[in-house]
This record gives sequence, C-alpha cells and structure tokens, in this order.
Amino acid sequence: MVKKSVSTLALDTSKATKGVRILPYAHLIYSPTVAMEKHAHIYPTTQKVTKEDRARLLMQKPLLIWFTGLSGSGKSTLANHLEVTLHQKGLKTFILDGDNLRTGLNQDLGFTDVDRRENIRRVGEVAKLMMETGLIVIAAFISPMQKEREMLRKRVGAEQFFEIYVDCPIGVCEARDPKGIYQKVRAGEIKNFTGIDAPYEIPKTPNLTINTENCSIPEALTLIKNSISERYLDIA
Amino acid sequence: MVKKSVSTLALDTSKATKGVRILPYAHLIYSPTVAMEKHAHIYPTTQKVTKEDRARLLMQKPLLIWFTGLSGSGKSTLANHLEVTLHQKGLKTFILDGDNLRTGLNQDLGFTDVDRRENIRRVGEVAKLMMETGLIVIAAFISPMQKEREMLRKRVGAEQFFEIYVDCPIGVCEARDPKGIYQKVRAGEIKNFTGIDAPYEIPKTPNLTINTENCSIPEALTLIKNSISERYLDIA
Repeated sequence: MVKKSVSTLALDTSKATKGVRILPYAHLIYSPTVAMEKHAHIYPTTQKVTKEDRARLLMQKPLLIWFTGLSGSGKSTLANHLEVTLHQKGLKTFILDGDNLRTGLNQDLGFTDVDRRENIRRVGEVAKLMMETGLIVIAAFISPMQKEREMLRKRVGAEQFFEIYVDCPIGVCEARDPKGIYQKVRAGEIKNFTGIDAPYEIPKTPNLTINTENCSIPEALTLIKNSISERYLDIA
Repeated sequence: MVKKSVSTLALDTSKATKGVRILPYAHLIYSPTVAMEKHAHIYPTTQKVTKEDRARLLMQKPLLIWFTGLSGSGKSTLANHLEVTLHQKGLKTFILDGDNLRTGLNQDLGFTDVDRRENIRRVGEVAKLMMETGLIVIAAFISPMQKEREMLRKRVGAEQFFEIYVDCPIGVCEARDPKGIYQKVRAGEIKNFTGIDAPYEIPKTPNLTINTENCSIPEALTLIKNSISERYLDIA
C-alpha cells in the first residue's frame, strides 16, 4: 500500500498551479491521481474547506455586530430590525440573544458573576464559529463589563467586531419594561440586576452609540447602517 | 404616544395579504404605516427573520450529518471530504469537530463522563443554532453512547439528523493511529480511552454504516452521498 496521503497530493497540486488560478475552487477538486487510488485506506488529511471558501460562497464578509446596553434599552428590537434589513438585501445573517441561548446552549447557566461571564464567553465562541461559516452575526446581550467586551473584540478580531452601545436612561428602560422584569426587581424578586443593584460599565470605545430615548426605529437603523457601511461595503 | 407596536402592524399586514404572496419577502417589508411612525419609541417586537427565511436565502434545507466511531476510524477524514464535495456543489456547510470545539467553546471541558456528555450536548446545541441559519452541519465526534446520540436526534429533529456509523476494527484504528494517541494509551499516558478502557456502544439504528477497513475515500463518499440523497435531494 502506498502511504501517500490525499492531503499531500492535494497540496502538491495546489503548489503546481500556484498563480495559475483557473477555477475558483481548483484547489478543492480531486486530482485524477486521487480518484484512481481505489484501494487507498482512510487516513488523516488536511484537505479542508476554509473559512475563506465559505465566505466566498456566501458572497460576503463575516462580521459580529454586538449590541450592549441595559435591559429595555432596545438591543433586541434593533437587532431584529437590523437583521430584517440585512436579510432583505440578501445578506446571510443570524441573531444570538437570550431567547435562543438561555433556553439551549446556556441553559445550565444562572446569573452569578461567574455564570454571566461564561454566558458571554460561550456566545463569543459560537459567534466565532458562525463567522467561520461566512455569516454576519448580530448579538444582543446586556454584557455589562468592559473587560468581557474587550475579550470578545480580541477573540473574534477587532476588524470583524462592531460594538454598538444602546444608550438609554434607566428610568426610560424601566418605564418601557418590556418583559415586566424591572417590576420584579422592584418587588425584590430578582437580585443582582444590571443598572439597579449590579453595575453596567459604559463602553469606552464603542464603534457606535445610539441613544434610543428619543429615536425612532427607522432613524436608529439608518444610523447603524451608515456607520457599519463605512467599514463594510456589503451593508451599504 | 401611540403604543401600537411595529410587530402588530407587521402581523396585520401579513394577514391582509394572506394567500396573495407577491414578493417572496413581502412579510418582511416595512409597511408605510411603520415608516411614517417617525417618533415611535423603541419597544419590543416580534418582527423577525425566521429559520425558514434563512434557509430560503441559502437555497437549501438544513441538516445535521453526524459521524460516530472510534478514534482513527476515519470520521474526520470523511467529514472533511464530504464537506469539500458538498461545497463544490454550492451547498453551504460547516464542520464541527474536536479541532474547532475543544480549543474554543469546550476548552473548559475534560474527558470525564460528565464532561464528555456536556461536550456532546453543547455540540448539539451549536449544531441546532447553525441549522437555524440554514446550514448543512457535518459533525465528527467519537460520541460513544447510544443515549447521547438519541438525545441529539431528538433535539434537532429526527428528519434533520443523519447518523453515520464509521465502523472499523479497533486493531485497524490502532495501526493507523493518526494522532499517535493509541500509542499514548498503551503507554498508560491516557486513561478512559474509548474502545480500550472505556465503552463504545455500537449505534442501534444509524442511517448509514460505513466500514472503512477496506474502503477507499471515493467509495465511502459515494455511499454517503447516495444514502443521504435518498432523503435530501440537494445532496444528490
């Protein structure tokens, strides 16, 4: 048995055609030599589809758009409307938020400091994996700590991380109280709630700040799209 | 301030046009009423891009192709080659395996029974999220326990779960030993290793069994593609 691996052959092929890129996926096509290796056993190979290949197929650049702010500030609302807008443009998107994370992947986590940190860490890791698929990921999490948001930026790469601070006075958030959660906090049913008895650290260097106190959804969306599109033409 | 929400308006619109589907994304387009609401505040909304919308944009049906088998049986090799094949067809794919999970999302997990179970649970949850983006997810994990594979099938939905048992005698796996891991096990450096001193439960009802002892990669791929395409025409 010849112990020459497919990966080696594939690499040889790609080297041979260096600079002579005829087909966009030429480096992924089985060479005839490989196809003839009828009785080759299965062995490890590095022949892989790369994140660049996947992004090319989706015809876009991956990006993580991260909304941070108090509960009730409008993060999820803006995230959902932004996804609708991008989706209409044909961009391939996904939303990560409490709705789909806390009921699944992070259902084992509570709201202690350690668990909240782990919550954000896992969201970052899932976002990173999704960006390797070529997707534009939109995340909406209170994410109150500067250190954790910095960790995210570092983990996914600063050039692919767009942090939006959804700024809204806590009184307004509490008046909106979309999930009736402030009412529970005031009734003493919930402890360690961000902005009440747990800190929210205002982002030091967000890519964009949106004040949602007196801002309509269409106005906010226009600001977001304009700001992101300065760096990411796809979104213009 | 009129407290009528965008979501309500959007839903009314979709009801009004029920059965009169003119544009594919008509239900996602802002109604003029919404656009005129210049001074509306930001409030919760259920206007969302659905998983069906995302799959439509990717022009495919999501699927989880799960490879299970001993270390060295050929799971990752087949998974990678399968992804290359599907990618060449223009299908949008992603691979989940030890390489990208153990170094990121699951880096906090070891190899105790509890941690291995948690490892597989998280993979299942990430796969489920990725399927909501419309992707075809290919996973390659030893995943030795029947109960956990059944849990996965239930969690993502049986009709979207395709289990491939990569069957190979442990002697052959050990002779291949692609990562030099069996050597470490025999030297006593690794404990609780599947097939040696930890159990592997042979799948009871896999969608496909591939014996890789005397099977070439192209042969195995043909078997896999034919078998999956019986249910998923995209892959034919």
